[in-house]
Amino acid sequence: MRHSIADIAAALGLVAEGDISLTVAGIAEPASAGPDQLALAMRPDYADALGQGQARAAMLWEGADWRSYGLEAAILSKRPRYAMANLSALMDRGQGYGSGVHPTALIDPAAALGEGVSVGPYTIVAAGVRIGAGSVIGPQCHIGWDVVLGDGAQLHAGVRIGARVRIGARFIAQPGAVIGADGFSFVTPEVSGVERARDSLGSTGTETAQSWSRIHSLGAVAIGDDVELGANSCIDRGSVRDTTVGDGCKFDNLVQIGHNVVIGRDCLICAQVGVAGSTVIGDNVVLGGQTGVSDNLRIGNNVITGGGTKVLSSIPAGRVMLGYPAVRMETHIESYKALRRLPRLLRDLAKTQKSVSKPDESD
Amino acid sequence: MRHSIADIAAALGLVAEGDISLTVAGIAEPASAGPDQLALAMRPDYADALGQGQARAAMLWEGADWRSYGLEAAILSKRPRYAMANLSALMDRGQGYGSGVHPTALIDPAAALGEGVSVGPYTIVAAGVRIGAGSVIGPQCHIGWDVVLGDGAQLHAGVRIGARVRIGARFIAQPGAVIGADGFSFVTPEVSGVERARDSLGSTGTETAQSWSRIHSLGAVAIGDDVELGANSCIDRGSVRDTTVGDGCKFDNLVQIGHNVVIGRDCLICAQVGVAGSTVIGDNVVLGGQTGVSDNLRIGNNVITGGGTKVLSSIPAGRVMLGYPAVRMETHIESYKALRRLPRLLRDLAKTQKSVSKPDESD
Amino acid sequence: MRHSIADIAAALGLVAEGDISLTVAGIAEPASAGPDQLALAMRPDYADALGQGQARAAMLWEGADWRSYGLEAAILSKRPRYAMANLSALMDRGQGYGSGVHPTALIDPAAALGEGVSVGPYTIVAAGVRIGAGSVIGPQCHIGWDVVLGDGAQLHAGVRIGARVRIGARFIAQPGAVIGADGFSFVTPEVSGVERARDSLGSTGTETAQSWSRIHSLGAVAIGDDVELGANSCIDRGSVRDTTVGDGCKFDNLVQIGHNVVIGRDCLICAQVGVAGSTVIGDNVVLGGQTGVSDNLRIGNNVITGGGTKVLSSIPAGRVMLGYPAVRMETHIESYKALRRLPRLLRDLAKTQKSVSKPDESD
Repeated sequence: MRHSIADIAAALGLVAEGDISLTVAGIAEPASAGPDQLALAMRPDYADALGQGQARAAMLWEGADWRSYGLEAAILSKRPRYAMANLSALMDRGQGYGSGVHPTALIDPAAALGEGVSVGPYTIVAAGVRIGAGSVIGPQCHIGWDVVLGDGAQLHAGVRIGARVRIGARFIAQPGAVIGADGFSFVTPEVSGVERARDSLGSTGTETAQSWSRIHSLGAVAIGDDVELGANSCIDRGSVRDTTVGDGCKFDNLVQIGHNVVIGRDCLICAQVGVAGSTVIGDNVVLGGQTGVSDNLRIGNNVITGGGTKVLSSIPAGRVMLGYPAVRMETHIESYKALRRLPRLLRDLAKTQKSVSKPDESD
Repeated sequence: MRHSIADIAAALGLVAEGDISLTVAGIAEPASAGPDQLALAMRPDYADALGQGQARAAMLWEGADWRSYGLEAAILSKRPRYAMANLSALMDRGQGYGSGVHPTALIDPAAALGEGVSVGPYTIVAAGVRIGAGSVIGPQCHIGWDVVLGDGAQLHAGVRIGARVRIGARFIAQPGAVIGADGFSFVTPEVSGVERARDSLGSTGTETAQSWSRIHSLGAVAIGDDVELGANSCIDRGSVRDTTVGDGCKFDNLVQIGHNVVIGRDCLICAQVGVAGSTVIGDNVVLGGQTGVSDNLRIGNNVITGGGTKVLSSIPAGRVMLGYPAVRMETHIESYKALRRLPRLLRDLAKTQKSVSKPDESD
Repeated sequence: MRHSIADIAAALGLVAEGDISLTVAGIAEPASAGPDQLALAMRPDYADALGQGQARAAMLWEGADWRSYGLEAAILSKRPRYAMANLSALMDRGQGYGSGVHPTALIDPAAALGEGVSVGPYTIVAAGVRIGAGSVIGPQCHIGWDVVLGDGAQLHAGVRIGARVRIGARFIAQPGAVIGADGFSFVTPEVSGVERARDSLGSTGTETAQSWSRIHSLGAVAIGDDVELGANSCIDRGSVRDTTVGDGCKFDNLVQIGHNVVIGRDCLICAQVGVAGSTVIGDNVVLGGQTGVSDNLRIGNNVITGGGTKVLSSIPAGRVMLGYPAVRMETHIESYKALRRLPRLLRDLAKTQKSVSKPDESD
C-alpha cells in the first residue's frame, strides 16, 4: 500500500514541503532507503547518511534545509521522534491474525464477546469471560475464568490470563506473557532463617530444617487502560487483595511483577526488571533494564533507575538512581571513580605512613 | 460458598471466640473488609485499620483483645502467618479447569493416566508418559515422551515437560514453565578464549575465530515431591546425568536452573534467579530475587542470599550473603558505608599529605 | 540401540584401543557407569572415579594409561571435551516428536513446506511461510505470516515466530522461545525525564506527567545459520530495519535481545542476559549469565564478560570484563580487594591523622 507525502503529513498533523504528491511504500533508515521509501532522519547527523541511500523524501526536524540533501519532498516535525509514533502506526502491516472466531477456538457459552472480536486458532476462552469490542485475541491463548478484558485488546500468540483478572481498554500483550499466575508466598511452621536474617541483618541463628507451606493467592490482577506487557513477562496475582497496575504503564519482555505490587500510572518498566511482593510504585516511574526492587518498599513518583540498579530501600519522589545498592546517580558515579583510584591510594597511604613514622624512629 | 467462624477455626486447628456461628464468604485486608469477609490482621499495626473496614470477624494473633476492635468474633493464632497457609487453601476458588479428559486433548495410547486425572483442551501427552492419580493437567500443555509425573500434580496453562523428566508427588507448575529443555553446553575445536580467560583471570591470549559445537543433553531432570515451579521458569536437562531438585523446593517466576545442577531439599529460589551448570546447592537454601550463581560451585546448607547477589565462588553452610561479588551481609554493609565515605576520604588525604610534606619542604 | 567401541571411534574420527568389539548402550559419568555404558573421563581427576563404577570402556585423553583403570577398551582423544559433541549427537534419543504433518496442525494453503518437514499437533503455520527441507516443527508452535525458516530447523514445543522473521539453516529453538515480538519503544509528546536524566547524568528537572506513545516495530528479525535459542528467550523485531543475529550464535534460556540490536557471528550469550536496543556486538563475543548491556553501545570482537556484568559503555575488542559498572577483570579484582580493606583503612587513617596532628598541637 502506497501513501502520498501529503497524506502522511495530514495524518500526522505535520507540514510537508516540495513534491507532496510523491508516494512511498514504506519507511527506512537514511543509508538504506530505496527510491520508494520515506527516509527517517531525526537529527542532522542521521541526515548526513541520506547521500548513501536513494530516498526521494524524508521526515526531518523543523527548519531542516531538506533540499540540500537532494530530496524532492520532506515532512518536517518539531519532535520527529514523537511523529514516528503515529507514522509507525500508519505503516504497520501487523501480524495478519485474520478476523472472526476461528472454528478451533473454544469459547465457553458463558463467555461474552463484544462486537468485532476476533479469536485465533486453538485459543481457549473460559466461562464468565467478557472481551471488549474490537479486540484481537491471537492464536493459542488461554483466557481464564471470569476474566474481563476491555475494548480494543490485542493478545499475541500464547498469552495466558488467569482467573478473575480484570484489564482495561487497549491492552497489548506480546507472546508468552502471563498475567495472574500464583504469587510466590510461602511460610514455615516456626520462624524461618530468612525472617531472622532480616531482623538481624545477617545472622540466621541456629537453623532447623523446615518445609514451606503454600499461601494461596486469593487476589487477582487489576490493570488499567493502555497498558502493554512484553513477551514472556509475568504479573502475579495478589494474596488477599489484587496486584494493581495503573493506566498507561508499559512493560518490556521477561519482567516479573510480584504479588500485591501496586504500580501507578504511565510507568516504563524495561526488560528483565523484577519487583518483589507488596512494593508500591508511584506514577511516571522508569525502571531501567534488569533493575530489581525488593519487597515492601515505596518508590516515589518520577523516580528513574539506570540499568541493573538493585533497589534495597524506599526511594523518595524524583530521584535518579543507579548501582547496587541503589544510590543517587551522582553519588554512584563519584563513588566508583573513587573506587578505581583506591588501589593506588592504598599504595600511597603506605608510603605516607612510612614517611610519617620515620621521624618517630629517629626520636 | 460461606464458612462459619467455627468451621474455619476447626479446619485450621485454631481457637475461635465470640459469635462463632457468624458466617463469611471470603477474606480481606482490614481496611477494605466488608461485613461478610473475615479480616486478616496478623499484627497490632494491621489491626488498627479494622476501624476503616466493616469486618465483623477477624483472624488475629494469640491474646489479641479482639473486642476492643469492635469485632463480633475472632480466630486467634500463635503464628497467624502460618495459619494463613491453611486458610488460603480453604478459600481458594481455583482456576476452574474442569474435570475429565477434554476431547481435544491428545493422549497417546501408550500413556497411563492415574485415577481422577483431568487433562485440559489442546494438551498433548506423549507415549510412555505416566501421570499420578488426581492430577490436574491444564490446557495447552505438552508432556513429552516417557515423562513420569507423581500423584496430585497441577500443571497450569502452557507448561512444557521434555522427554524422560521424572517428577514426584504434588508438583505445581505455573503457566509457561519449561522443564527439560536442552542444556547450554558448547565446545570449540581448539581451546577457546573463555577457557583461557578463566585460567588467566582476564587474558584471552591471541584469539582466532572458532565456531561452537553442540553437546547434546543426554540426561533428563529428576524432581522430588512437593516442588513448585513459577511462570516461565526453566530447569534444563543434564548433559550425562540428570539435573536434580530435592523435595519441597519452591521456584518463583523466570528462574533459570542450568544443566547438571543439584539442589537439595526445601530451598526457596526467588524470581529471576539463575544457577549456572553443575553447581551443587544444599538444603534449606534461600536465593533472593535476581541472585546469580556461577557454574561448578558448592552452596552449603541454610545459605541465604539477598536480592541481586552475584555468587562467584563457593559458600560455606549457614552464611547470609549480599553483593557483587557476594560477601557476608555484614561485610557488604560495612564496605558500602566505607565506599560512600571514600570520595571525602580522598579529599582529606590530599590535605593530610600536604600538611605532612610541608615540613619537608623547609628541610 | 547398542554401539561398538570401534563404531563409536570411527564415527568420531578417534583412535580406539583394547577390545574394540565391546558394545555399549549409552554413556555415563565414571562413578555411576554400569557395565554396558561408556564412561566419560576427560581428565585424570575424573578418571580416578572409574573404580567406583563398573565401566568396561571409557573415553579418555590422548596418552591415558587406560589399562591402569581396569578398563577393557578405550577411546582416546586429544580434546575429549570436543569429542563429546559428536558422541552426544550419536547417543541422543531426542524428543520423539513423530514424523509427517499432524492432522491437527493448521498449515495455510499459501505456506510452502520443504521435503521431509514434520509439523507437530496444534501448530499453526501462517500464509507465506517457507520452511526448509528436513525441519522438525514441534507441537503448539506458531509461525507467523511470511516467515522464512531454513533447512533442518528444530523447533521445540510452543515456539512463537512473528511475521516476516527470516532464519537460516539448522536453527534450534527451545520451548517457549519468542522471535519477533514488538520492540519496546515509546515516546512522550514533550522531552521526558529519562531524556533529561541522560543528558544531565542525574537530574530530571521539573517533571510533568506525560503518557507514552507506542512506536510500532516495522522491522523484523534476520537470523543466520546454525543459531540456537534457549527456552523462553526473546529476540525483538527492529523499529525500521531488522534486528540481526550472525551465523553460529548460541543463546541460552531467558535471554532478551532488544530491537535493532546487531550481533556478529559465533557469539555465546548465556542465560538471562539482556541486550538493550540498537547495541552492536562483534564476532566471537561471550556474555556471561545475567550480563546486561545498555542501549546504543558497541561491543568489540572477542569481548568476554563475567557473570552479572553490567555494561554501561562501549567495550573495545578483546577485553575481558566484570562488574557493575563493567571494568577490565583485573581492575575489578584489584578494586574489590581494596574495597574489602577500606573499612580498616578508614580506621588506620583516623589514627594517622591523629599522630600527624599531635605534634602540631605542641607547636
